[in-house]
Amino acid sequence: MAQKIVIIGNGPAGMSAAGAARLSDRTAEVIVIDTKEYDTFHPCAMPFVIGGYLPSVDTIIEKLAYERSKIQLHKQSFVEHVDTNKKELQFKDDENKLQTITYDKLILCTGSKVFVPPIPGKDLENVFSLKFAEDAEAIKKAISTSLARKIVIIGGSAIGIEVSSELSHLGKEVTIVEMEPQLMPFKISKSLAGTIKTKLEELGIIIHAGMMVKEIIGEEKVKKVCIGSEGAEQVIEADVVVLATGVRPNIDLAEKMGVKLSKLRAIEVNEKMETSIRAVYAAGDCVSVNDIVTKKTSLALLAGPAVRQGRVAGINAAGQEATYPGSVNSFIVSSRFFFVGIAGITSEQADELGVETVSSSITAPIIPHYMPDSKEITIRMIAQLDDGKILGAEVIGEEKVEANVNYVAMALQTGLTVYDLMNIDFCYAPAVSETIYPIVKVADAIIRKISRKKQRAKK
Amino acid sequence: MAQKIVIIGNGPAGMSAAGAARLSDRTAEVIVIDTKEYDTFHPCAMPFVIGGYLPSVDTIIEKLAYERSKIQLHKQSFVEHVDTNKKELQFKDDENKLQTITYDKLILCTGSKVFVPPIPGKDLENVFSLKFAEDAEAIKKAISTSLARKIVIIGGSAIGIEVSSELSHLGKEVTIVEMEPQLMPFKISKSLAGTIKTKLEELGIIIHAGMMVKEIIGEEKVKKVCIGSEGAEQVIEADVVVLATGVRPNIDLAEKMGVKLSKLRAIEVNEKMETSIRAVYAAGDCVSVNDIVTKKTSLALLAGPAVRQGRVAGINAAGQEATYPGSVNSFIVSSRFFFVGIAGITSEQADELGVETVSSSITAPIIPHYMPDSKEITIRMIAQLDDGKILGAEVIGEEKVEANVNYVAMALQTGLTVYDLMNIDFCYAPAVSETIYPIVKVADAIIRKISRKKQRAKK
Repeated sequence: MAQKIVIIGNGPAGMSAAGAARLSDRTAEVIVIDTKEYDTFHPCAMPFVIGGYLPSVDTIIEKLAYERSKIQLHKQSFVEHVDTNKKELQFKDDENKLQTITYDKLILCTGSKVFVPPIPGKDLENVFSLKFAEDAEAIKKAISTSLARKIVIIGGSAIGIEVSSELSHLGKEVTIVEMEPQLMPFKISKSLAGTIKTKLEELGIIIHAGMMVKEIIGEEKVKKVCIGSEGAEQVIEADVVVLATGVRPNIDLAEKMGVKLSKLRAIEVNEKMETSIRAVYAAGDCVSVNDIVTKKTSLALLAGPAVRQGRVAGINAAGQEATYPGSVNSFIVSSRFFFVGIAGITSEQADELGVETVSSSITAPIIPHYMPDSKEITIRMIAQLDDGKILGAEVIGEEKVEANVNYVAMALQTGLTVYDLMNIDFCYAPAVSETIYPIVKVADAIIRKISRKKQRAKK
Repeated sequence: MAQKIVIIGNGPAGMSAAGAARLSDRTAEVIVIDTKEYDTFHPCAMPFVIGGYLPSVDTIIEKLAYERSKIQLHKQSFVEHVDTNKKELQFKDDENKLQTITYDKLILCTGSKVFVPPIPGKDLENVFSLKFAEDAEAIKKAISTSLARKIVIIGGSAIGIEVSSELSHLGKEVTIVEMEPQLMPFKISKSLAGTIKTKLEELGIIIHAGMMVKEIIGEEKVKKVCIGSEGAEQVIEADVVVLATGVRPNIDLAEKMGVKLSKLRAIEVNEKMETSIRAVYAAGDCVSVNDIVTKKTSLALLAGPAVRQGRVAGINAAGQEATYPGSVNSFIVSSRFFFVGIAGITSEQADELGVETVSSSITAPIIPHYMPDSKEITIRMIAQLDDGKILGAEVIGEEKVEANVNYVAMALQTGLTVYDLMNIDFCYAPAVSETIYPIVKVADAIIRKISRKKQRAKK
């Protein structure tokens, strides 16, 4: 008899799991249960909808070819209970009727939930969070009037930066308020955060870092935001507030099911994406993963890892084999004006781990200086002092940031040293590259630093 | 006493060797002897000078900061004799005087020589080869008149394709004549060569493949080119002829010195870039290298590997340590309209090696289809049937070709399988990538093909 694979959640992980399960077992019944009213959408493109680079929210909502693939999708459906002994679950369908179905394998792809701190006034009109397509649409509508001139973004993370850059492009007066002392805290180095701050300020964006939001003020609609560090308060005018305060793994259902959670309050999975409960897999924002560089448990909370994990969960659930080794935390933030990316860890994170490292930073042309449109890129790389093993790099520039992040990701996942990087056969043509890539130049600088440090130590 | 490192040749390998020697031994005397009258130039940019994308040949001629680095450069100087027992060499300097110098370490970076087949008429006016900046200037001048309307490029290799695309952009009537049945023979697959042919034909370029050039006809100046396959001849009008018939390692001096050569008539070197003669190193187009994929001796004849080899030779010559593992033959051809790149081997080459492979080709968007300016890229990848080890890939597109070639190069150099590639933490943002990269999609297609093939074999 055909096996029944049920997937809860149709985000990047769920879609990937469904597709992989389908391809791995052509006869299986594949059922996806999701809360949204449309098939899927592309959350990372929401800033472009808000900024008008994409014409409307419909652009990022997509109908899937599930029928052709014989994948059943229950939209606007909410799983209420899972009986893992009976391998059975109940969900409320789009007509609010309770349905009961059995499963042979279950994959939890419940994603993440917006985290909103308990700020007074957060429920006022024109205060938005940004998680679903509806949110992007609502923000777009709210800012479309010329009365919405001053926008306050609460949270200086990736999404906060992307949205602020788009809004600034529209001519709005944008302020970012970040609780931690730097932008993208715990993600990038202080130094890179400083560079981004300068770049955003050049666009006219005001940044208050190390500032708590005390209150969002207004009657019906928001009017002001009260922020403050210790002993000092400040009030900023605000016509619209966007809460970019981050997301947390959505483990509501997993917790009810008794699935084992990690210290980070996410679902614990092994390399096959199996949870602690027999026949139950999990993938995406709701799980914690192995950080390949630090060997610690971490949260990825990114679409890329979610897709890769979903695939592995789907293949294993379908009875074939695949493993997911973990993530190196590579990601990229795109603004209309520059890109910032990172893979691996920063010097600060290495210090915390007690690893002795050497780092170097370079700003170098991507294509030769004599070519028209030659632009520079900045790369800061860190490596272990003892053996030169690459631990991470941060990249900022207008072009080819993602390629450089990917080179570093590959280096991290294959355990390359700075010495190895010198011999990678990067291709060369003046229209696209330098003979010596910036990433190779920075690795070479690290090699020389290591050699000097070791010589000094000998003396 | 300070050691004396002498480098013959100031191309990519020589410059890299000089720089690395300098940095590895701050006290060494570093001397470079070169035949050119200028410090250096960028040969790969010559097509852009010819096509006018770069304003003049001066743009690609460069003065080096050798004085600051305390590197002595003898320009317009020709080494006539090396006594490897006495460690001494003679060269004619720019005043035609014979100078004798000693060395502790010698690095041969003599590069390559243009190979021109013995075609009757090859010495007629307006017939050019393309190796030095002077050649680019001469061609530019010859085509600058409206009388130079019909251009025949002899040789359908990378440089032939790049020059033809530039000339076509100038509105010239361009014909490529290639002796072998396909463009870029022995370098890329028949299938990709066919795609390139179509693309060039769409630009109005006429391509005669599998055609020998019998004669270049004219009185003083070239007027026609007679080409033919067996039994059939054809005459093409030509105002200008460019010989893009390739280069061969320049081993004249090495041969005289008694340095051991490989079967490919290039200097044989080990991982440290040492030749068969004590204290003599070599790097660049004049050496043969290990092909990491085929494990065979090969010629790279590219600037990238030359720079990497030069660095290793310079470091070892200076008394430090570095090794060069070989090349994976990654390269990119850039036209004004598209890019073509490859790393590793083609299916045809794998067949010759007797390796059973699986290949797949995909054309997929680089960034999501809903983004403005979303463009497609085509990637054809091959992997070993038994373990899925990646053996190579060909890439063609308008964007990000070099990045994809580099991902493959890194995969080849670290021995990745298609299964490994599925878990590489490629970063994602809609402005720069898809969640699932084309290169991952094609690897996934190969995984499914392998699995089907193995299942069929079981039955």
